[in-house]
Amino acid sequence: MEIEHYMQIAFSLARGAAGQTSPNPPVGSVIVNQGRVVGMGAHLRAGERHAERVALDMAGKESAGADLYVTLEPCSHTGKTPPCAEAILQAGISRVYVSALDPNPLVAGSGIQRLRDSGVEVQIGVCTDLARELYEPFFHFIQTKQPHVTLKTAMTLDGKIAAFSGHSKWVTSEQARLDVHRLRYVHDAILTGSKTILHDNPLLTTRLPQGGLHPIRVILDTHLSTPVASQVIQNTDAPTWIFCGSAASKERELSFLPYNHVEVFRMEKPAIAVSDVLDQLGARGIMTLLVEGGSSVNASFLQGDAVDRIITYIAPRVLGGTDSLTPIGGENPALMSDAKDFIFVKTEQLGPDLKVTAVPKGCDSNVHRNH
Amino acid sequence: MEIEHYMQIAFSLARGAAGQTSPNPPVGSVIVNQGRVVGMGAHLRAGERHAERVALDMAGKESAGADLYVTLEPCSHTGKTPPCAEAILQAGISRVYVSALDPNPLVAGSGIQRLRDSGVEVQIGVCTDLARELYEPFFHFIQTKQPHVTLKTAMTLDGKIAAFSGHSKWVTSEQARLDVHRLRYVHDAILTGSKTILHDNPLLTTRLPQGGLHPIRVILDTHLSTPVASQVIQNTDAPTWIFCGSAASKERELSFLPYNHVEVFRMEKPAIAVSDVLDQLGARGIMTLLVEGGSSVNASFLQGDAVDRIITYIAPRVLGGTDSLTPIGGENPALMSDAKDFIFVKTEQLGPDLKVTAVPKGCDSNVHRNH
Repeated sequence: MEIEHYMQIAFSLARGAAGQTSPNPPVGSVIVNQGRVVGMGAHLRAGERHAERVALDMAGKESAGADLYVTLEPCSHTGKTPPCAEAILQAGISRVYVSALDPNPLVAGSGIQRLRDSGVEVQIGVCTDLARELYEPFFHFIQTKQPHVTLKTAMTLDGKIAAFSGHSKWVTSEQARLDVHRLRYVHDAILTGSKTILHDNPLLTTRLPQGGLHPIRVILDTHLSTPVASQVIQNTDAPTWIFCGSAASKERELSFLPYNHVEVFRMEKPAIAVSDVLDQLGARGIMTLLVEGGSSVNASFLQGDAVDRIITYIAPRVLGGTDSLTPIGGENPALMSDAKDFIFVKTEQLGPDLKVTAVPKGCDSNVHRNH
Repeated sequence: MEIEHYMQIAFSLARGAAGQTSPNPPVGSVIVNQGRVVGMGAHLRAGERHAERVALDMAGKESAGADLYVTLEPCSHTGKTPPCAEAILQAGISRVYVSALDPNPLVAGSGIQRLRDSGVEVQIGVCTDLARELYEPFFHFIQTKQPHVTLKTAMTLDGKIAAFSGHSKWVTSEQARLDVHRLRYVHDAILTGSKTILHDNPLLTTRLPQGGLHPIRVILDTHLSTPVASQVIQNTDAPTWIFCGSAASKERELSFLPYNHVEVFRMEKPAIAVSDVLDQLGARGIMTLLVEGGSSVNASFLQGDAVDRIITYIAPRVLGGTDSLTPIGGENPALMSDAKDFIFVKTEQLGPDLKVTAVPKGCDSNVHRNH
């Protein structure tokens, strides 16, 4: 078999735990001795064994002289668990294949160095495209201390998200809406604006046939107009964090006091700046943020250059209407050349709909840059 | 080799002549004798030899006992050329493979019947998906006496075709714009509104590196506000047909008199009805119409249920802006459920852009219905 074959299995293991390892990244590992897989492992939850450790424990004595594949550089420092580089050495592994280096530039390469110093052969950069897809949000968080932001929109083929009345149920198919719940599952937090709360009164939880973790619900609500009766306040399945401007009513803030899962973040200025919100979310350990806003919230993220990925579901329907709502509103740019440039990285058919993924132009090689 | 293999070659021949056979459809034919191709042909221009005839002439005596593949049912009536069914019989062809039947229900099957009556084995319905793609516009025209309408739009990933100022150069890449010229090449006519003429002053001709036929230029211009100085009047490369309302200024109409390639069609009512325009274009032999309008013209076609295909070029850019223009405007529908349903039939990447093709839901099986 080929190196890529085993690394792909390691990535499958890692993806299996995606969405449940925060604040750690998902990692997978495979150990191969003389062409036979003798150990497989994934990191399942912060504080528990790292992927390499799980695979080594399964392989036992068969680790001696074996090859170890791991999606992310083994750690060389003692955190909540002892360093994996030491465990690999003690188990007698001969060769290590690594996909991505540790994103922290101060640490990157030190796990590799520790292994090489002890005579272990190490090859890095295997399956970098898979690493980019899986680790970009994690690397972004480490480098910027802000969450990686995915802007999700769902629109008709003529770019409409709702009729002028606000009516929007439904733009896309059941298959696409199920996929949105998968997106929620793998994000630490989901963000929307108070207009969406007032208009659609959404639950903002993950609803999948086999269950799934709920993201933290984040509401941008300058004047604290979120009704106490709304689902995000009455439903306690996930924390609800409400960001408001400095001038928002104290009385309204007090009305949320009885709800333990609700927390109000009062900004220093009357208006809410996206970058301040991202700073606070980052400080609270939110690594990945899914923005499911209306035209205005989406526009404020775009204008703040705070969108790291756009996922657009396009339905094969045409609504028309001069005043129908579009995915991104906000201030009117004067020229088409004022548009922000992205690149398409993926196009899939989901039932009758298309799912298109785009990332900012020039930002498609974060992982490569580390190699 | 397989039946489909030879029929695919016949379709390649037919597509090679697409856009230059009007009012006839493009047709290709291949003759195979004992596993060897002995004749190939396509119909190149109305009045010239049909595809079967070209292939038979090439094959000569080797037609005897051979198989003939043809994309459309051989004709059995004498038009500008003698009937192909007779020529096939005279050449001694043993078997005939046909993809699509003649769309005219009064004629459909008569060419096949003539062959079968004389002992030729005939199989129909080979490669029906290719037939659907190539012949849908032709079948539509025969059945409705109106041109087949393709609505072409080019928008950003957030559904914008221009800034609120009207500025729109350019939404998409050079590759996508070249593809639009290919679209113009294979359409008999191209239609836009006077607003687009006033704002962009386009040439509306086919500009391809190796040249190409120009479609007839059709302008919807209720009040005859197209300036005499505009390119569609000053440039004589293609006819320009201007449709105006019954109340449009006679004086303005006279100002177009000196231009022989310009013709004014005055409607019976003050407003221009899309269906009346399509009737007149059909009566003039226009089989395929490419609509490259702004928000309003596009909306009038959509609301008149006059769109047989939508081709949307999507650029990986995001413009934003509450008042930016979208591909389809017009009256405001109250509900998302008022949207017209299409289905996606093709998605391609063109340079950095996506090209998405959709057809009205339930209208994707015109050709199959004939079989």
